[in-house]
Amino acid sequence: MNKIEPRTLPGFMELLPNEQILFNEMKEKITKSYEKFGFLPIDTPIIEMSEVLLAKAGGETEKQIYRFNKGDNDLSLRFDLTVPLAKYVAQNYNNLAFPFRRYQIGKVYRGERPQKGRFREFYQCDIDIIGDGELAILNDATMPAVIYNTIKELGFNDFCICINNRKILNGLFKELNQEENSVEIMRIIDKIEKIGKENVIKCLEDMNVEKTSIDRIIEFIEIDGTTNEKLEKLEKLQVSEELFKQGLEELKQVVKYIRSFGVPDTNFKVDLSIARGLDYYTGTVYETFLNKYREIGSICSGGRYDNLAEYYTDKKLPGVGVSIGLTRLFYKLNELQAIETSKKSISKVLVVSMVEDQTKALEVGNILRNAGIETENYLEDKKIKAKFKYADKLQIPYVIVIGEDEIANNVVTLKNMQTGEQQTLSIEEAKKAINE
Amino acid sequence: MNKIEPRTLPGFMELLPNEQILFNEMKEKITKSYEKFGFLPIDTPIIEMSEVLLAKAGGETEKQIYRFNKGDNDLSLRFDLTVPLAKYVAQNYNNLAFPFRRYQIGKVYRGERPQKGRFREFYQCDIDIIGDGELAILNDATMPAVIYNTIKELGFNDFCICINNRKILNGLFKELNQEENSVEIMRIIDKIEKIGKENVIKCLEDMNVEKTSIDRIIEFIEIDGTTNEKLEKLEKLQVSEELFKQGLEELKQVVKYIRSFGVPDTNFKVDLSIARGLDYYTGTVYETFLNKYREIGSICSGGRYDNLAEYYTDKKLPGVGVSIGLTRLFYKLNELQAIETSKKSISKVLVVSMVEDQTKALEVGNILRNAGIETENYLEDKKIKAKFKYADKLQIPYVIVIGEDEIANNVVTLKNMQTGEQQTLSIEEAKKAINE
Repeated sequence: MNKIEPRTLPGFMELLPNEQILFNEMKEKITKSYEKFGFLPIDTPIIEMSEVLLAKAGGETEKQIYRFNKGDNDLSLRFDLTVPLAKYVAQNYNNLAFPFRRYQIGKVYRGERPQKGRFREFYQCDIDIIGDGELAILNDATMPAVIYNTIKELGFNDFCICINNRKILNGLFKELNQEENSVEIMRIIDKIEKIGKENVIKCLEDMNVEKTSIDRIIEFIEIDGTTNEKLEKLEKLQVSEELFKQGLEELKQVVKYIRSFGVPDTNFKVDLSIARGLDYYTGTVYETFLNKYREIGSICSGGRYDNLAEYYTDKKLPGVGVSIGLTRLFYKLNELQAIETSKKSISKVLVVSMVEDQTKALEVGNILRNAGIETENYLEDKKIKAKFKYADKLQIPYVIVIGEDEIANNVVTLKNMQTGEQQTLSIEEAKKAINE
Repeated sequence: MNKIEPRTLPGFMELLPNEQILFNEMKEKITKSYEKFGFLPIDTPIIEMSEVLLAKAGGETEKQIYRFNKGDNDLSLRFDLTVPLAKYVAQNYNNLAFPFRRYQIGKVYRGERPQKGRFREFYQCDIDIIGDGELAILNDATMPAVIYNTIKELGFNDFCICINNRKILNGLFKELNQEENSVEIMRIIDKIEKIGKENVIKCLEDMNVEKTSIDRIIEFIEIDGTTNEKLEKLEKLQVSEELFKQGLEELKQVVKYIRSFGVPDTNFKVDLSIARGLDYYTGTVYETFLNKYREIGSICSGGRYDNLAEYYTDKKLPGVGVSIGLTRLFYKLNELQAIETSKKSISKVLVVSMVEDQTKALEVGNILRNAGIETENYLEDKKIKAKFKYADKLQIPYVIVIGEDEIANNVVTLKNMQTGEQQTLSIEEAKKAINE
C-alpha cells in the first residue's frame, strides 16, 4: 500500500507528551487564577456564520480568516474570542447577570504567513468584564490584579504591567487642536529614542505645529519617574481639556486600587508611551512584560472599550479585558528554557509484575489509585530491563516491583527512580513514601 | 446602524455559564480519571491537510467533512481523534515510549443533518493504548477499568460495561463456512427480539444455511446467564476453529483481569450481541450503558484494532481504545436532569462594600483569595439590594459586607445566602466558615 506522509500543517503547534504536560500545566494555572477572581467560563463554537463573525472585521483581519462554504452556509473560523463574546452577550443578554465577568480559553485561527514563532492556530486566554450601560472604573484595576496573580502563578516574579489611559494623550491633542494630526504626531513621538529630541521638534515644526504646542508635547513625553511622580507631573501640565482630566482622574483611581488589590509597585507602572494600537480601546490600556525576556514582547495586553456589541444590539455594553496568547508564550518560554514543569510525567508510579499472573500487581495499582496516586500498570511481557527503561523514558518517579517474595510477604519493593534507592515496604508505607 | 442578529449555528452547543460550569466539571472529572491511570495528554490541530486526514475515510464520513481550500492548501477539520492519533504516532514514532498511552479531549466536526441532540461540533474524550508490533491482551482489561472509574467519578453507580470479542462470532462463521454470509446472518440474528426465533431459523433456511449450522448459530445466540456461565457455554459449543478459540481465550483473560482491576460484576458483563458495527475493531469491543437511561444509547464505546496507522507507516501498531462523546452525553443527561454540579457558581464569596472607598473590601478579597477561596469584589455603585440580587442570580453561596462598623472594628459581616444566617466575624473566622 502507498503510504501517505504523516505531517502537520505549518503554523500549527503539536507537542510531544512531556511538552504537552507543561503546556497543560500553564493552561490550568491560568484557568485557576481566573477562577480565583470569580470569572465565569464560557465555550463558544469555533465555527460561526461569516455574517455574524465578520460584522465588524475588515482589512488585514478579514484576509486572514479561514472562510468557506458548507451546503448553503457561509462559515468562518473564529479569529479571536472577543467577537464571539460580543455575540454571546448580545444573544444571551436577558439570561446574564451584569457586570458579566467571563473567561474563555480556546483556540483561534488566523491564516498568517507562516513564520517561526507565529501560529495559525493558537490558544487565547481571555477575561472580560462587561457592564450593562455602565461599568465602574474599579474594574480597570481588577485586570492588573488578575494579571499579577496569573503571572506569579506561572512562576514569574520579575515582570511589569504597564498601564496607560488613551484619554490622556487624546485629551492633550484635543487641547492643542491637533486631533487631526494625532496619528502622525504619535508616529514621530515614537521615534524619539532613535532620532533624538531635536529631530522630533524639527519634524513637528515641519508639520506647522505651534511652538507652544511643541513645548507641551515635549514636556509630556519627557515625563518620567515613579508612578506617583508621573501622576504629579501630568497634573502639573495644567491641561484644561475635559477628556485629559477624565483620563488622568481614571488613571489615578486605577493606580490607587491596583495597590489595594495587593499589586506591588515593583510589578506595575504608568507608562505613557503604550497606546495599544487600534482605536478599539477607549480608556485604560495594558501591556505586560517579563523583564528578563523583553524580546517576547507583551505577554498580556488589553484595555477598556466603550461598546462591546454595537453590531448586534442597541444596548450599550462597555467592557474591560485582557488576553494572554498562550501558544506563542509557551513556545517562546520553552525555547528560552524559561519554564519547567513541576512534574515530568502523569504517572507517579509504574507497577511492574515479575510474575506472569498480574493479579497482585493490578490490585496494588487499584489501592494506589484509590489513594489518589496516578498509577500505571506495566502490562507487556518484556524483560525487566525494558520495563525500567520505559519508566525512565517517561520520567515516572517511582517503580513498584511485585515478585514472588513480595506476594508471599504481602509487601512491595519501591524504587525511587531519581535516587536509585530501593525499599521493601507495606503498601501503606509505599503510599506515604510516594506522597512525600 | 443596521444590526446583525447575534446567533449560533444549529448543531453547535453554546451554554449559559451555570451549565458551562457543570459541563467543565464533567470534562475535568474525565481528565482526572484518565490521568489517574497514567494516560498522557496530547493536543492535535483541528485543521489538517485533507490528504492526511482523509487517507482512509470514504462514504458517509467523507460527506460530513468540513473541507475547504485556503491558499493552495486542501484542508479539513478533524472528524474524530483517532485519525489524528494515527498521524501523531506515525509522525513521532521515534520519540514515543511504547506502549503509548494517550488521552485526548477535544472538539471534532461532522456536518451532519441537524437534529435534536445531534451535534456538528462536539467533544470527544478518547483514551488509547498503542503497542509497537504487539500489545498484551491485559490492555483490553484496562479499558473497562478506566471506564468504570470514570463513570463512577461522574456520579453514576448503576451502569453496565458490555464486553465482547469479535473473533468469537467471526470464528463461529468461519467454522460454519459462512464467512461470506456473515454480514447478512448478523443482520438476521439482530432481529431475533423483533421477529422471534422461528422466523430467524426460517430466514437462515431461505439462505440455504445447513440445518446443523443453523442449530449451532441458534445455540450461540441463546447463550445467557452470568458472565461465568456465558464463558462456560461458549466453551461447550466445542468450536474447533482457531479464531473462535483465540477470541474465547482473550475474552476469558479480559474478564479475569477486569475483576483484578476491581470492577464488580454488577458493572460489567459479557454481551455476545454487541459487535460495534464497522470492521475497524478486530478483537475486544465495548459498549457502556447507564441502566436508568438506556435511551441515551452507549455512552462509552470502543475496542481493539490490529493496526492503527497502516496508511502512514509500515510499522505494525495494534491498539485498544474507548471514547466518550461528551457533548451529546451532557446534553442528554442535562435534559433528563440526571446531573447536578457540586457548585453552582465559580465564586464562593462576593465582597460588597457599603462605603464608597473600596480599599478595605479589596483587601478582604485579597486575603480570601490568598487563602485559596474564589472571591469576587462587587465594584459597581449600586444599591445594596442590587448587590445581593447579583449574588443571588449567580448563586454565590456567601456575601461579605464591609461597612463603616466593620472597618472600625476590623471585622466582616458574613451572610450565608442559602440559610440567610448573618454573622459578624474576624476575617480568620470568616475564612474558616466559608471553607466549611
